[in-house]
Amino acid sequence: MGVKDHKEKAPRRFRFAVITVSDTASRGEKEDKSGKFLVEELEKAGHEKVLYRIVPDEKMEIIGAVVDAFRAGADVVVTSGGTGIASRDVTIESLRPIFDKELSFGDIFRLVSYEEIGTAAIMTRATGGIIRSSGRAMAVFCLPGSLGAAKTGIKLILAEAGHVLKHGRE
Amino acid sequence: MGVKDHKEKAPRRFRFAVITVSDTASRGEKEDKSGKFLVEELEKAGHEKVLYRIVPDEKMEIIGAVVDAFRAGADVVVTSGGTGIASRDVTIESLRPIFDKELSFGDIFRLVSYEEIGTAAIMTRATGGIIRSSGRAMAVFCLPGSLGAAKTGIKLILAEAGHVLKHGRE
Amino acid sequence: MGVKDHKEKAPRRFRFAVITVSDTASRGEKEDKSGKFLVEELEKAGHEKVLYRIVPDEKMEIIGAVVDAFRAGADVVVTSGGTGIASRDVTIESLRPIFDKELSFGDIFRLVSYEEIGTAAIMTRATGGIIRSSGRAMAVFCLPGSLGAAKTGIKLILAEAGHVLKHGRE
Amino acid sequence: MGVKDHKEKAPRRFRFAVITVSDTASRGEKEDKSGKFLVEELEKAGHEKVLYRIVPDEKMEIIGAVVDAFRAGADVVVTSGGTGIASRDVTIESLRPIFDKELSFGDIFRLVSYEEIGTAAIMTRATGGIIRSSGRAMAVFCLPGSLGAAKTGIKLILAEAGHVLKHGRE
Amino acid sequence: MGVKDHKEKAPRRFRFAVITVSDTASRGEKEDKSGKFLVEELEKAGHEKVLYRIVPDEKMEIIGAVVDAFRAGADVVVTSGGTGIASRDVTIESLRPIFDKELSFGDIFRLVSYEEIGTAAIMTRATGGIIRSSGRAMAVFCLPGSLGAAKTGIKLILAEAGHVLKHGRE
Amino acid sequence: MGVKDHKEKAPRRFRFAVITVSDTASRGEKEDKSGKFLVEELEKAGHEKVLYRIVPDEKMEIIGAVVDAFRAGADVVVTSGGTGIASRDVTIESLRPIFDKELSFGDIFRLVSYEEIGTAAIMTRATGGIIRSSGRAMAVFCLPGSLGAAKTGIKLILAEAGHVLKHGRE
Repeated sequence: MGVKDHKEKAPRRFRFAVITVSDTASRGEKEDKSGKFLVEELEKAGHEKVLYRIVPDEKMEIIGAVVDAFRAGADVVVTSGGTGIASRDVTIESLRPIFDKELSFGDIFRLVSYEEIGTAAIMTRATGGIIRSSGRAMAVFCLPGSLGAAKTGIKLILAEAGHVLKHGRE
Repeated sequence: MGVKDHKEKAPRRFRFAVITVSDTASRGEKEDKSGKFLVEELEKAGHEKVLYRIVPDEKMEIIGAVVDAFRAGADVVVTSGGTGIASRDVTIESLRPIFDKELSFGDIFRLVSYEEIGTAAIMTRATGGIIRSSGRAMAVFCLPGSLGAAKTGIKLILAEAGHVLKHGRE
Repeated sequence: MGVKDHKEKAPRRFRFAVITVSDTASRGEKEDKSGKFLVEELEKAGHEKVLYRIVPDEKMEIIGAVVDAFRAGADVVVTSGGTGIASRDVTIESLRPIFDKELSFGDIFRLVSYEEIGTAAIMTRATGGIIRSSGRAMAVFCLPGSLGAAKTGIKLILAEAGHVLKHGRE
Repeated sequence: MGVKDHKEKAPRRFRFAVITVSDTASRGEKEDKSGKFLVEELEKAGHEKVLYRIVPDEKMEIIGAVVDAFRAGADVVVTSGGTGIASRDVTIESLRPIFDKELSFGDIFRLVSYEEIGTAAIMTRATGGIIRSSGRAMAVFCLPGSLGAAKTGIKLILAEAGHVLKHGRE
Repeated sequence: MGVKDHKEKAPRRFRFAVITVSDTASRGEKEDKSGKFLVEELEKAGHEKVLYRIVPDEKMEIIGAVVDAFRAGADVVVTSGGTGIASRDVTIESLRPIFDKELSFGDIFRLVSYEEIGTAAIMTRATGGIIRSSGRAMAVFCLPGSLGAAKTGIKLILAEAGHVLKHGRE
Repeated sequence: MGVKDHKEKAPRRFRFAVITVSDTASRGEKEDKSGKFLVEELEKAGHEKVLYRIVPDEKMEIIGAVVDAFRAGADVVVTSGGTGIASRDVTIESLRPIFDKELSFGDIFRLVSYEEIGTAAIMTRATGGIIRSSGRAMAVFCLPGSLGAAKTGIKLILAEAGHVLKHGRE
């Protein structure tokens, strides 16, 4: 069965959560442009928002927001921010350990990023994974916090999230 | 500074959460004797309950309850159940990855268990750890689900949780 | 010493095993097109088949087939299937832990896949590694189960397996 | 349900494999006293031998013997040797990565060893685990190669293997 | 804040160490062309050399050289060699465990390598990371030992090391 | 061959390093009683001191001291301090990743500690391991920083270090 067939059986609409991870945005010192952009793009594509939240760069806040997304019935979670190499960047460290399987999303994201921003992509630790629990599967995509990264990432997510969900649920 | 001095500076009262992990108890098919016993013992010792919950053997339910304990201001979380080797036993797998440091609680628990139940202790994967986030430190102790394990575990926890919190907060 | 020199000293012929990992193919409900294609391509290139087997998506069957390939004197093992994100997909989980060193085969495979199938490559967890034991080194390449993936993968493997063996044996 | 009840429902007879891991014994330069002792004790207790093999300290030989034990229908595998700290000791490194869950067998084994041989127990890396595949669960216990270790270990295994199997199959 | 702004705030000059990892070069049997090239390129770009050393493929020599680079005040360490799949190649195994965060340097390096040397890039285990200690952050880049790899790598490092340092120090 | 025979072939004298890990002692604000005690006991037993150093709780200082011990020809390294659960305690995190094999020293240490200080042993993350490099094997034992822990630990180390070295060198 080819890639095309797979996609035709993938869910066309899904429930999504957007979680912005940023100390400054969570204190209201900075507008959350990336998070808002992600919500808009996902809604424009016909998907249903079940959670949008801004949290500081703190492990239990990040995990807590993903737990709340799961409780709200999210199929897809997109996080924005906290994927860099500063000591406060803990999104990857917080979420990777609770993935059941890690996607190769980060590899492909870096490939596309490299085409767009060049060698600065070496600082992009974006990744994605599947969390399975209670008979459900939820896909999580962790994007860097810049608006550019959100633009690059959302294209990949809109193109592939349905496909990921279809397989993740098998 | 000796062990005795350390304890004198440790908090005498703490806020606790008890989380029972059991498919059957979560469906109401079995009374949660262990969880209730743990709550009673901790309250008798003067500690303050901030959460008591029964969840099924599901990763996101277990992590979610620990997140809620953290949000409720818990200093100490005691989980009961899901530490064995059945395929549904996922308490250790769910919580160990979110510990910042793992305590040697499991080693000492098994040592005491061995004195009490003998070689059956080889199936006891009890453990404990510290979760640090948002400037706080929360200790988590994962006990087997039997009432005997709760009795063994609570003695250790009542004796050492204050000490653990003192150091964990450093 | 350049890449070209290295290749001239690499073995030109090797013994190979092809292991198809598929529940449906192992029950005879689906023809193993990918596995047969891989065998044909490797034989056409002058390499010697020592094992061709179809196994279900089960850890001990997958590891067992790799053990049998090693016993049969295989230099190169190619697996097909079980690299995705469905819960039954366990090829990577079964074989990665027994690699001595992991190759960057997966990165390059995804790069080429991205050129061919686009963003769907985020679900491709293909990888490769070296197993060293009893004075021998065996290269293992884990491909996705589709015929397209077999076509992409075999080009990389035919081009590089000799080179990998040469270095792996050092 | 207490420990006693559990044991009454555990299988009373099981199929076992004994795998001795020793370069010298595998070359016939040393008699395999420990392995023979383990086989005798397990048979005396009414269990059924499905495999007894001596392999050198080589990863693929060790994994291969465990695979053959699984294929032969073993419920319990006992390995003897290769658990020390010499560079050739690779039993733990070979088998731990294929366990689904690790038992606390090593902790209890060291506790008993300490009572018997004292502080030399710090070199004992004995462990045990459960391998799940194809709808079955197989328990694996890795003992040090000395006859003393076999004597200490077999008591634990005879006392608890049924219990482990019962839970491992859940 | 865009990528461009970030770079303008990144340090323009840094102190660097070059560590060549090669059994043959360390015995003087081979000239260290790659290491010398890296030193020249970094100096040409205005950076300050604090250490240049050739060590054999031995864990404690490699870690020791990185420790000495840190003591000499290095901001950036570039290692050359020992990233392959031969059994003596231990640079990655020695240094990755002491990184605080791993960069995606290897992914981007392989991407560029693939454009230059094609599929042979599957043997390139190049990586990079940040080591944080004593209030400082030091970036480490591990390149393959060939002159070609040094040429590919130095371009990435010259373009991004300042950027990495800026974020790593946050 | 029994435990007794092994010991008779173990080295009777060895070169040792003592590394005290303590922010306060490294700034001279506290006397290093534990470190001095360890040096005295090891010298009294006829072993040769090659390094004694006090370092702050910083990864690169700790690793650096172990590297210097290796360079000075140490057979045995004893560290004191930094094994607890405070956020500054990083001795275990710094050294465990560079062990080739981990000893069960921590298990036996906790067993003896439990007999001496009771349940407070749950905070003792003491461990030990073997580092192999350049044809040598060096044993490392990581003790808690209290004088009591030094007293408990040194007995184990004096009793078993020769034995560990003998096997570690195999």
